[in-house]
Amino acid sequence: MSENLFLDDFTVGQRFVSGEHLIDEAQIKAFASQFDPQPFHLDDDAAQSTLFRGLAASGWHTAAITMRLMVQGGMPVEGGLIGAGGDISWPKPTRPGDVLRVESEVVSITPSRSKPQQGMMTVRGETLNQHGDAVQVLVVKMVVPRRV
Amino acid sequence: MSENLFLDDFTVGQRFVSGEHLIDEAQIKAFASQFDPQPFHLDDDAAQSTLFRGLAASGWHTAAITMRLMVQGGMPVEGGLIGAGGDISWPKPTRPGDVLRVESEVVSITPSRSKPQQGMMTVRGETLNQHGDAVQVLVVKMVVPRRV
Repeated sequence: MSENLFLDDFTVGQRFVSGEHLIDEAQIKAFASQFDPQPFHLDDDAAQSTLFRGLAASGWHTAAITMRLMVQGGMPVEGGLIGAGGDISWPKPTRPGDVLRVESEVVSITPSRSKPQQGMMTVRGETLNQHGDAVQVLVVKMVVPRRV
Repeated sequence: MSENLFLDDFTVGQRFVSGEHLIDEAQIKAFASQFDPQPFHLDDDAAQSTLFRGLAASGWHTAAITMRLMVQGGMPVEGGLIGAGGDISWPKPTRPGDVLRVESEVVSITPSRSKPQQGMMTVRGETLNQHGDAVQVLVVKMVVPRRV
């Protein structure tokens, strides 16, 4: 899809699938070193004795990769992807070697009463690994422009 | 505080304050290039004509910095900071030159019925800039070990 969509172009239940991203141990450790320096994100041996039972990506790393996949063709919103907030959960850890993709569904569409040029759209995005397991579920409220 | 806390050591209403992090334009652009490559996170001129009216950090960058501040003394949880999920919002953008800190409050403490060695703790964390404005509010459910 090459053309970006306005709020008026979306429909509830509409689905989008992103491209894929392969995450490896080096990426996991690099992100964790900078933003989440805990043993279970930095060292496979140290991670064995933790809740994770092996090296796992920071949840915020999974979130950041999810954003990258969304921006790069995951959902073509006019003006870009701007989130106001949402609910996030990580049902399973992201592991080295996982191939992630994002499957998104439009949950609700709400034109603004006070701002005729925009509205809010709620999107439920599942970040899935190569086995089809959800490693992240994000229900996010996005600001989306209208065709005016 | 040098000693880590178990679930049993926390009390509802207990508060913690992290150290500080100065975010600059280079950090904002580096994170965005890797994870959220949109004009308003990459280029101040391009950002002027967007909802952000100037360069702003990716919300996921604010989240990642928040995690770093939490891990580095923001809340001393035994076994580390492990989040199962939560609600996140970004009331204001994070800007170049902002000095961020996290103020956290324990909202609820729930020992597990099935796993006597752990429980869940809900923490509300506000990421504040140097003016005291919240750039992120995260209400997160954390897995915390018990003294057994």
